[in-house]
Amino acid sequence: MILTVTLNTALDITYRVRSLRPHASHRVSEVTERPGGKGVNVARVLAALGHEVTGFTGGATGRVVQEKLAAVPGVVDALVPVSGATRRTVAVVDDRSGDTTQLNEPGPTITPSEWSAFLAAYDDLLPAASAVALCGSLPPGVPVGAYAGMVRTARSAGIPVLLDTSGEPLRRGVAARPDIIKPNADELAELTGSHDPLRATQDARRRGAGAVVASLGPEGLLALTRDGRWRATPPTPVRGNPTGAGDAAVAGLLSGLVEHLPWPTRLTRATALAAATVRAPVAGEFDRGVYEEMLTRVTVSGEVSAA
Amino acid sequence: MILTVTLNTALDITYRVRSLRPHASHRVSEVTERPGGKGVNVARVLAALGHEVTGFTGGATGRVVQEKLAAVPGVVDALVPVSGATRRTVAVVDDRSGDTTQLNEPGPTITPSEWSAFLAAYDDLLPAASAVALCGSLPPGVPVGAYAGMVRTARSAGIPVLLDTSGEPLRRGVAARPDIIKPNADELAELTGSHDPLRATQDARRRGAGAVVASLGPEGLLALTRDGRWRATPPTPVRGNPTGAGDAAVAGLLSGLVEHLPWPTRLTRATALAAATVRAPVAGEFDRGVYEEMLTRVTVSGEVSAA
Repeated sequence: MILTVTLNTALDITYRVRSLRPHASHRVSEVTERPGGKGVNVARVLAALGHEVTGFTGGATGRVVQEKLAAVPGVVDALVPVSGATRRTVAVVDDRSGDTTQLNEPGPTITPSEWSAFLAAYDDLLPAASAVALCGSLPPGVPVGAYAGMVRTARSAGIPVLLDTSGEPLRRGVAARPDIIKPNADELAELTGSHDPLRATQDARRRGAGAVVASLGPEGLLALTRDGRWRATPPTPVRGNPTGAGDAAVAGLLSGLVEHLPWPTRLTRATALAAATVRAPVAGEFDRGVYEEMLTRVTVSGEVSAA
Repeated sequence: MILTVTLNTALDITYRVRSLRPHASHRVSEVTERPGGKGVNVARVLAALGHEVTGFTGGATGRVVQEKLAAVPGVVDALVPVSGATRRTVAVVDDRSGDTTQLNEPGPTITPSEWSAFLAAYDDLLPAASAVALCGSLPPGVPVGAYAGMVRTARSAGIPVLLDTSGEPLRRGVAARPDIIKPNADELAELTGSHDPLRATQDARRRGAGAVVASLGPEGLLALTRDGRWRATPPTPVRGNPTGAGDAAVAGLLSGLVEHLPWPTRLTRATALAAATVRAPVAGEFDRGVYEEMLTRVTVSGEVSAA
């Protein structure tokens, strides 16, 4: 069982409009809703394996998130209820340009007792987990060192842990020595101060990350681990909606970790899943045909460490 | 008791963002939610009087609408539950310009049995009503002649009825001879084919409306009734957020009707309430101080019919 943690779960709402014009009134032609938050997205991609999701939920939106999550086969919900309303995200898709305008609510304020209840649930779930993913932003009220503490708990229990967040929670979390981090280019530059991906991944490892897998958008992944350094590249730059591509890559890395696959195979899988997500018609889903095709077409180049 | 009908209730969500840019991602700094839909807005303004609201509700959003409505003093909720989710509207307020971008969901599809249940509830509530307001758009599944039938039922019961809708539901509803309609300039032009407000109000009366009160935005109201013709004008054009101003005017007209006030006094009240809504900091609320000041400053000019 893989445990994916989503502290700031969301109800992801997508609106289709003919053409978005600021300061005008728009009739929404189509509404879709799905449970969201990075860890939930990771869990959905991992659903072919048996695994469990834990995170916060709350208020009226939280009930909807839980009901919708219950309908996803293979995902077991261990969400911890809170009194505030779970945040919504609204993506407005412009039919003419295909572009998306995103509006993200901040999330409810978590009380100290709710945070304690969450940590107790985390401790209970950890022993049964083969790996843990800590994903996304922290809702208001959760201490900025939350992920650092959760990384240490997982490591004490001997469970590999992947951290996918940004800003100060990432900086503190890295110092707690997670097994893998998966920053994008902006998050990596913010962490290290360097815009050179190779130099920045080296710096992030020195800060405490066991392996750094940087997602470089359409150019694929750059990985620096104790075993070596690799670059995984899709055959052509992939066009489409990048929502959820990073989460799909996390699912690829995690499943490869628990299956004890060598790094190049993990990176091929992660890159193929990300590309198949960008190409899927529904944001955050992946296209299985594209995934299987990409598995044979992603190239991995690099070198194994001499050490 | 005044009965206000809202067939397409809504959860009105307002997002504050620093500056809305299409195709970018935005962090929402403030979220406010209130129960909405035109008849609900009218009911809230009328809450100083005792009155009852009826309309549809449904799904997860509907529960939120009902909970929030229960917190409004003076408003008695007689909402009829439906299986679909109540629609949301999202207003995105741009902090820099103060302008609002509006996104409106269409609303749930109403089944024939839900529509029958609503009509039964309407028939039950009518005998206790001193006046009825039929407000807003029809959700999918409700027959386009719905308001026409509800106007006839009210008239048969001897209860005065105000109709505030647009398009084909307005066209059919007018033919059923409602006591008052309150179109804005666009709705009036669509009904009559004329962009000349005076000519269009005359035409709308010929089509069956007992009185036509056209809202002309910052220029106030133009009324044509069997008693005469009046124009009510605020002292200066009112600047601010026009959301809910038309609904506040409906509340002014309705309360004046049940208090048997003469038309010029009703129009003064309606114009003052609309101006006080435009000037209020929260969309759809009215500023009581501005209202009381406007009552002394709105001018009404016109003539009483010779007939």
